[in-house]
Amino acid sequence: MTQPQPICEVWRGPFLESLHLGHAVITDDTGQVIQAHGDPGVLIFPRSSAKMLQALPLVTSGAADAKGLSEMRLALSCASHSGAPLHIEAVDSWLSDLGLGEGDLRCGTEPSRDKELRHQMIRDSQAPCQIHHNCSGKHTGFLTLNQHLGGGSEYVDPDHPVQRACREAFEDVTGMTSPGFGIDGCSAPNFATSLQALARAMSFFATAHSRNDTQSRAAARLAAAMRAWPEHVAGKGRACTLLMRAAKEPLVVKTGAEGVFIAILPGRGMGIALKASDGATRASECAIAALLVSLGVVDAAHPDVARFMTPKLHNGRGVEVGYLRPAPSLFAG
Amino acid sequence: MTQPQPICEVWRGPFLESLHLGHAVITDDTGQVIQAHGDPGVLIFPRSSAKMLQALPLVTSGAADAKGLSEMRLALSCASHSGAPLHIEAVDSWLSDLGLGEGDLRCGTEPSRDKELRHQMIRDSQAPCQIHHNCSGKHTGFLTLNQHLGGGSEYVDPDHPVQRACREAFEDVTGMTSPGFGIDGCSAPNFATSLQALARAMSFFATAHSRNDTQSRAAARLAAAMRAWPEHVAGKGRACTLLMRAAKEPLVVKTGAEGVFIAILPGRGMGIALKASDGATRASECAIAALLVSLGVVDAAHPDVARFMTPKLHNGRGVEVGYLRPAPSLFAG
Repeated sequence: MTQPQPICEVWRGPFLESLHLGHAVITDDTGQVIQAHGDPGVLIFPRSSAKMLQALPLVTSGAADAKGLSEMRLALSCASHSGAPLHIEAVDSWLSDLGLGEGDLRCGTEPSRDKELRHQMIRDSQAPCQIHHNCSGKHTGFLTLNQHLGGGSEYVDPDHPVQRACREAFEDVTGMTSPGFGIDGCSAPNFATSLQALARAMSFFATAHSRNDTQSRAAARLAAAMRAWPEHVAGKGRACTLLMRAAKEPLVVKTGAEGVFIAILPGRGMGIALKASDGATRASECAIAALLVSLGVVDAAHPDVARFMTPKLHNGRGVEVGYLRPAPSLFAG
Repeated sequence: MTQPQPICEVWRGPFLESLHLGHAVITDDTGQVIQAHGDPGVLIFPRSSAKMLQALPLVTSGAADAKGLSEMRLALSCASHSGAPLHIEAVDSWLSDLGLGEGDLRCGTEPSRDKELRHQMIRDSQAPCQIHHNCSGKHTGFLTLNQHLGGGSEYVDPDHPVQRACREAFEDVTGMTSPGFGIDGCSAPNFATSLQALARAMSFFATAHSRNDTQSRAAARLAAAMRAWPEHVAGKGRACTLLMRAAKEPLVVKTGAEGVFIAILPGRGMGIALKASDGATRASECAIAALLVSLGVVDAAHPDVARFMTPKLHNGRGVEVGYLRPAPSLFAG
C-alpha cells in the first residue's frame, strides 16, 4: 500500500465528520521495517522531529563538553518548547554563559505558546523576542557549536559549517543521502528524507546506548537528556512532555510541524516515524499515541494518553459535541 | 471516483510537504451536478456554510418583517463574524431592539477573532461574552424568530420550534431528508446532508430571484443581504468577505468549520459545495478560490484571490519558505 492510510477519525454526533490519512513506520533494532501503514518510502520533511539529529554535532564535535553543557541544556537543544518562563530563563542564561545575547539568534520571533506569559506580554505591551521562539534552544545549541567551530554569525546558511555538520549527521543516522532541503519555520535548513529513513534514525538512537562510537554515544546522551527533561522538550500540557511521562518504559517522542511525530524506544531498540499527509497536528498526536498503545508502551486509559488519542471535542458552552479516535487499522499492525 | 481527490498542495522548498484531499460539487440551475471531484454523495456536516439555510424561517415566518430587520441584520444572521467592534455593536443593538440581552443567547463564548479587540480585552482583563462568538448574529436571528413564534428560552434544543423550522427549511432546499444531526460549536443542531444536496441548496439560492414562492423570496433576500454586507458576513481579511468583494459577477460564498465552503452564483443559477476531508480551512479556502477562478468568477491575479488560492508561507524572520496551490485537477472539471 503506497497510498496514505486512515490514521485519525473525527466524529460529531453519529457521523464521521473528517478523516486524516497518513503514513507510519516502525523499525526494529537493525533499522528494518517491522510495521508500515501507507508508504514507508514517502519523502517528508521531518521538521522539528529531527531536532535530536541536528543536535548530534553539538555533542560529537566536543562543543557540548567544552562549554560544560548540562543535560537540561542538551534537552533544550532538541526542544520545541512552549516559550514558558522556565524555557525563556533557561535559554537566556545559556546565551549569557556563551557571552551572547538574543540578537545573535537567527530563529526569528514568535509569540510565546504559553498562554499565561503571552497574555502577560500583551498586557505589558511587550513584543515577543527570538528567545520566545519554540526553536530558541536548538538555535542556542547551534551557537554553542558555532563558537567551538569558529564559524561566522550566519549559522543558518545551508553552507555554514554548523549546517554542513548537521546535514552530515542527518545523512549518517538516516542512512540516506538527503535529496534536498527546505527552509524551516526557524530559518534553518530542514533536510528531506524518507519516512523509513527517519524511523531508521530513531532506531539508531534507540540502540545507541549499546555502542561506543562517537555518534552513538552522542545519540544516547541526547535521548537520555530528552527523557530526563520532558518539560524542557515541550511544555505544560503538550503531547511530547505528557506522553514521555506517561510511558511505562523508556520513551522519547518528538513532534514536528505539518503532522510529523517520532518515537525512540531504547528498551526495545525500536524507532517510529509518522506523517499525517495533510499536516494536521491533531492527527499526528492521535496516531503516535495509538501506536504507542498498540505496542504496550503507554496505557490507553491513562488520561494523558487519552487526551491525545481519543480527545473529546467541546464547544463554547462546554458541551461535548464529538471526539477523535485513531483509525482501527493502526492497531492491526 | 468516490474517493476524495487532491484539492490543495503544500510546498516547501523543492518538495510537496503536505496534501489535502476533498470532495467538491458544482450544480446547475436545476440542481444537477455538472462538475464533481471525489464523491458527490459523501455525507457531511455543512456547519456554518448552511447559515443562510438556517436563516430561511426567520424570513419566511414573517418574523424579519414584523421586527423590521434591516438588510444588514439579515446578513448578520448568516454570518460567521470575526467579533470585531462593528459586529459586536450590531448584534448588541439588535438584541436591545428585541428587548433582550447577551444572557438570552445560547451560543456560548469565544474570544473575539479580531486581533486588535482580543488584545485590548486581554489588556482590560475583560472576558469574552456570547456576543463575541462568531455565531452571535445567527443566534440573534434565532431569538428574533423565537419571539415571533413565542417559543421557550432554550431555542437550541433540537425539538424547539425554532430548530424544527430550521430543519424543515434545510430539508426543503437541500431536497433531502437529513439522516441526523450533530451539535455545532454554537450548540445549535447542525443537520447532516450529502455534498450534492448542499450544492443543490446553493443552486436553489442562486435561482431564487427568478421565483415568487415564499421560500424562494426569502432565499433571494438573504443572498442579496450577504452580497451587500460582506464585512458583516465575516470580517477584515477573511476569505468570505474578500472573495465576495473580488468577484466580477454576483457571488455569495460562505465558509464552514472542518473544511467546508459553499458558493452561490446568482448570475448563472449555479451552486458549489466542497469539503476538505481532513477538515482543513487552508485547503477549503484554496479550493473554493480555485473553483471560482476556473469558472471565471474571480481572477487568479487579484491579490485577495491569490492570498487564499496560492498563499505564500513565511517564517518567523519573514522568509518565504513555501506556498500552497490548488491541485491541478480542480481546473480540469
